[in-house]
Amino acid sequence: MYRIGIDLGGTNIKVGLVDESQKLVSEKFTPTKSERPAEEVIADIAKTVLAVLGEQSLGVEDIAGVGVGCAGTIDAKNGEVPYSNNLGWENVPFAKLLQKYLKQECKVRISNDANCAALGEAKAGAARGIDNVVLLTLGTGVGGGVIIDGRVFEGAHAGGTELGHTSLICGGEPCTCGRKGCVEAYVSATGLIRDARRAAEAAPESLMNQLCEGDISRMNGKIPFDAMNQGDEAAAKVVNQYIDYLSESIANFINLFRPDIVLLSGGICNQGKKLTDPVNERVAKLCFGGDNSFIAPVRCASLGNLAGIIGAANLIEQE
Amino acid sequence: MYRIGIDLGGTNIKVGLVDESQKLVSEKFTPTKSERPAEEVIADIAKTVLAVLGEQSLGVEDIAGVGVGCAGTIDAKNGEVPYSNNLGWENVPFAKLLQKYLKQECKVRISNDANCAALGEAKAGAARGIDNVVLLTLGTGVGGGVIIDGRVFEGAHAGGTELGHTSLICGGEPCTCGRKGCVEAYVSATGLIRDARRAAEAAPESLMNQLCEGDISRMNGKIPFDAMNQGDEAAAKVVNQYIDYLSESIANFINLFRPDIVLLSGGICNQGKKLTDPVNERVAKLCFGGDNSFIAPVRCASLGNLAGIIGAANLIEQE
Repeated sequence: MYRIGIDLGGTNIKVGLVDESQKLVSEKFTPTKSERPAEEVIADIAKTVLAVLGEQSLGVEDIAGVGVGCAGTIDAKNGEVPYSNNLGWENVPFAKLLQKYLKQECKVRISNDANCAALGEAKAGAARGIDNVVLLTLGTGVGGGVIIDGRVFEGAHAGGTELGHTSLICGGEPCTCGRKGCVEAYVSATGLIRDARRAAEAAPESLMNQLCEGDISRMNGKIPFDAMNQGDEAAAKVVNQYIDYLSESIANFINLFRPDIVLLSGGICNQGKKLTDPVNERVAKLCFGGDNSFIAPVRCASLGNLAGIIGAANLIEQE
Repeated sequence: MYRIGIDLGGTNIKVGLVDESQKLVSEKFTPTKSERPAEEVIADIAKTVLAVLGEQSLGVEDIAGVGVGCAGTIDAKNGEVPYSNNLGWENVPFAKLLQKYLKQECKVRISNDANCAALGEAKAGAARGIDNVVLLTLGTGVGGGVIIDGRVFEGAHAGGTELGHTSLICGGEPCTCGRKGCVEAYVSATGLIRDARRAAEAAPESLMNQLCEGDISRMNGKIPFDAMNQGDEAAAKVVNQYIDYLSESIANFINLFRPDIVLLSGGICNQGKKLTDPVNERVAKLCFGGDNSFIAPVRCASLGNLAGIIGAANLIEQE
């Protein structure tokens, strides 16, 4: 049966119709305009869902349900959004409101965006057919999604599996969550860029400065890799350190969840095996139990932004 | 129905008969003598089980099954022990062997010792009636057990929920697992004693030295608390730092599992509210989502060594 998957972000709402073979049949975007009351945003989501369905001559009764991925602290059990910074929402009874604008009987499920990305990759992406997956989204922040036995592992209450907000170097770099030294503060693109900027400033001869055209505010996550590939020492140090941070973080999550596979997503995955080969080598040496335990391979995710919509659609089959 | 719970350690095997009200009806100990082949140890376990049952005029057919808690990397799904350092075991098909010596039809379940302790506390101890529990055992090492929806959360493969082997200060103090800076290296009794020794050596005037009778090899986890209570500054610093480490670790596990309650066990829990009050205060400030999320209270476990046997017995009702 068809399902609707929605990627609900602070800027845009992406609504997709997903078929049984996990194909995105059609999609529509609408601006979130998150400064509006939540109820108006949700009314707009419903309109967009109906528009996507209408285009295919379908009605709400023709779909198995609507799944939504949303940044923030999500109460999946109750279909509520206790808190979303990106949307400016607090205690929004999301599922109830969306059902009001669609149909009372329409199944509505919501989960954290990184959880949905992990589920999408497990159903249709780099972990297709694999039941136990840990996904790290390496972007401005670090999101984490954990799939166990083919289902999103949420923990008990809203706000679980915040993999990015566990300690890497407690007391270290400030994190957006208010703590110091979280995984996010080191392995996000933001963390890499901060470290690359510092290294470029400390080494005026570094190629990284040229690649920034002399303006380190132009630093991005690709420049240290590019400079390293051209033999730049300062850049190699930055990349090496980053790969250490990432490997230690992944070893933590393997020691906790023992998945079949660990996936990484975000722009840094464009580095492909230049990233994952050294990460796999280091992770293997760090995991508890060593040779006597199963150590998941680390790979790049494959669905890109689509993972969220596909995963959200698959929330519908979660119970 | 009655169940047998077993605490299988490197030195002793404790076999208990547990009734439906979670009461330990009777128990027997036998030395592990772990230098023997695993099959001989398991044959002895079976003998002890039959002796415990015999005393109550019961047979294997009168019990719902046998549950076992064992230190090491346990494959709960398959009833196997891939690796146990304490026992010197590798790839032991535990459940199959125990069934051979008891009865083919006897249900046998095995899990990590800290998982069993957590399950015991959830069924009969400080978390009785609570379905979502994280337990940290603060001893020579740090064990971790996670109960979600009343069941042990094992992760996907053997060796999950090794809470003690996740980073606290990556690159820091050496950990028994070979990495540097794990939670275990800081919040175990061993970690506290190391830090207290260093502080006592650095401050010859500290009361901690007197309480050790001038021999810091006699340092234990109680001395820094005792010295602090008598106004010793160096000791207060050690305790304060320890409470910080513990609070940061607990915040990590709340951000991952979002339990109803976090329990601590081990000798350090004799400090009671002197430990848990400041921990609760700090944890509340560290968790992701702050006021918009549920933050579990931290309490001391109540069953002591009994938790393992009671929890092991409850593995039988896990599917």
